[in-house]
Amino acid sequence: MTPVTAGSGRGLTDLFVEAARQALDDSGVDRIDSLYVGNMMSGFLQNQEHLGALMATALGREGVPAYKIEGACASGGVAVNAAVKAVLSGLENVVLVGAVEKMSGYTTPEVTAGLMMAEDRLKVASTGVTFVGLNAMIAREYMHKYKVTHESLAQFPVHCHQNALDNPKAQFRKKIDVQDVLQSPLVADPLRLLDCSGIGDGAAAIVLAPKDLARKFTDSPIEVAASTVASDTLSLYQRPTITTFEASRQAYDRAYKQSGVTPKDVDVLEVHDAFSILGVMALEDLGFAKKGSGTQLLDEGECARDGRVPTNSFGGLKARGHPVGASGLYQVAELALQLKNEAGKCQVPGAEVGLAQSVGGIGSTVAIHILRAMK
Amino acid sequence: MTPVTAGSGRGLTDLFVEAARQALDDSGVDRIDSLYVGNMMSGFLQNQEHLGALMATALGREGVPAYKIEGACASGGVAVNAAVKAVLSGLENVVLVGAVEKMSGYTTPEVTAGLMMAEDRLKVASTGVTFVGLNAMIAREYMHKYKVTHESLAQFPVHCHQNALDNPKAQFRKKIDVQDVLQSPLVADPLRLLDCSGIGDGAAAIVLAPKDLARKFTDSPIEVAASTVASDTLSLYQRPTITTFEASRQAYDRAYKQSGVTPKDVDVLEVHDAFSILGVMALEDLGFAKKGSGTQLLDEGECARDGRVPTNSFGGLKARGHPVGASGLYQVAELALQLKNEAGKCQVPGAEVGLAQSVGGIGSTVAIHILRAMK
Repeated sequence: MTPVTAGSGRGLTDLFVEAARQALDDSGVDRIDSLYVGNMMSGFLQNQEHLGALMATALGREGVPAYKIEGACASGGVAVNAAVKAVLSGLENVVLVGAVEKMSGYTTPEVTAGLMMAEDRLKVASTGVTFVGLNAMIAREYMHKYKVTHESLAQFPVHCHQNALDNPKAQFRKKIDVQDVLQSPLVADPLRLLDCSGIGDGAAAIVLAPKDLARKFTDSPIEVAASTVASDTLSLYQRPTITTFEASRQAYDRAYKQSGVTPKDVDVLEVHDAFSILGVMALEDLGFAKKGSGTQLLDEGECARDGRVPTNSFGGLKARGHPVGASGLYQVAELALQLKNEAGKCQVPGAEVGLAQSVGGIGSTVAIHILRAMK
Repeated sequence: MTPVTAGSGRGLTDLFVEAARQALDDSGVDRIDSLYVGNMMSGFLQNQEHLGALMATALGREGVPAYKIEGACASGGVAVNAAVKAVLSGLENVVLVGAVEKMSGYTTPEVTAGLMMAEDRLKVASTGVTFVGLNAMIAREYMHKYKVTHESLAQFPVHCHQNALDNPKAQFRKKIDVQDVLQSPLVADPLRLLDCSGIGDGAAAIVLAPKDLARKFTDSPIEVAASTVASDTLSLYQRPTITTFEASRQAYDRAYKQSGVTPKDVDVLEVHDAFSILGVMALEDLGFAKKGSGTQLLDEGECARDGRVPTNSFGGLKARGHPVGASGLYQVAELALQLKNEAGKCQVPGAEVGLAQSVGGIGSTVAIHILRAMK
């Protein structure tokens, strides 16, 4: 993983190559069979597509099959899923999968317009509502329906900032409290600045291989116990409820069928907290808390690294940073470090099973990965 | 396949749904396990990403895993390859894969800038050279190196226009001759307007399934005998030669290893003739003619439907049309019709084996599919 930063002036290729080289060096593989690149906004912001061949060339690996995979803000998670299927297909053995997003260096309206590419351009974006605005509607409805206060939701970013203090690659390494969140500038009522992930640049990468081959490269291989994707209607107005993401539930159900892993088996959890409300909803939709009671886990300190549900151990989207198309891969890379006991100060002691949830659009795509330390 | 048209005002969703519904109806499947969408330019031209969830929703199939796959002008071919791996993975059985591009309704400079996203933005597009300009350099070098005249190259579009007369879905159903090509407006020396594919909108889709399952849906299933992708350096300046696409050769070598199919086994061939020079080079790079002698096949009428190498039987990119990210899927769908003996007036009698080559950027990505009628 590269550090998540804003304003460095570094480009897509520079970022991707740093993460990819780290992944190759760390895994010890010399040859790759293919390359998968997760990214959402390069066409719009950088006017650059064809990231597969671009990154293969930049890595000196031209020749290999190379792909760009897009699933909005879940592009990183979705790219891992596509790469997992490539390995399972038997056609490719050693697969490099990375994801990159560069969001800084543009005006806020430009980035805001870019993010709205995750929603329906003709029917929703055209109304003028922003991506934050749609999430704000969810927050308002959730607070009303379940009688949850903004103070309670605000604990999520406070928690993430606390964890990020220990992550040298985090974008926001600053302790905040609930009052800081509530007093930060209003973005889209009720969401305030500190309810929202920021604008950042970054890349992350991992190497996948069949189990027998992975054992040759490392003494501490990590098993992909489940890799699933589910979709939902693209737009909120098409759904019976907006306070549950059905795609999270479906993706989790499929992941359970693949792995047999239940919430109580999960030692470390990474959820897609692009906004405070989404972090809380994820705890519920994935079965770690009853609907409407996700904030109780925070009240009780259970999301801390020594709690019952250690969540967003490196700071999550809010504080580690959210280079949108890359975040899903940061999550998986962070889980791998946890399960290899290489997470440094972010380590969750004894973690053996991890789950990552990556969300594209307003819950329209959800990728779930369950990783397990191999015995 | 939708007809390829320009100026209809139809949007991405409208086009994609028409093709996808045709594919579903034609194959008789009621349920799909996943959806793959090939597309290159939606972020840039339509400011719309997240085509996976968008199209799943439009088809009333929300819930399924849904992906956008991008590989520049080869996006359609690359999407089929990703979908093939999904089926082989065992995680998905019935897979809908489609591709769509909408290029009309924008200014020529806008579309030209969009196409250059296939090349390196910072190092090549920034010089001002266009996508046609780069292909023109290849044509000039090829003509010089192999003493081939423009008259000879011009036979390729003439041939394609001839075939398109029989294809009701073709964009350009107009007979042309070599003099028409040579006298058409100059675009980038030596390439003239009729050396170049046009700007068009369209979508194509197919359904993939494991062989045993496919037999339950149809009496005339088509086997994907090979599905490969190769990359090359993103930019021409990075290559030792520009008159051969090494990625075509590599993708074909891999396809041969998968299928055992040699050029003499191929009954019908679809090549990526975005420009006349590319059609001729493909005949050579894929082993149907010696290097520098591809035009001899045209001289001798061997590319006609009753020739030795029936090529671009529905009109190819030049005359059927080239909605860039969709063309690779048009090719595969056309081959399937040929092998099912359902190609109407475009039928190549007795065709049992077909090969499609889809090129992204200036030969930086090549996808090859070999299809075979199942006994």
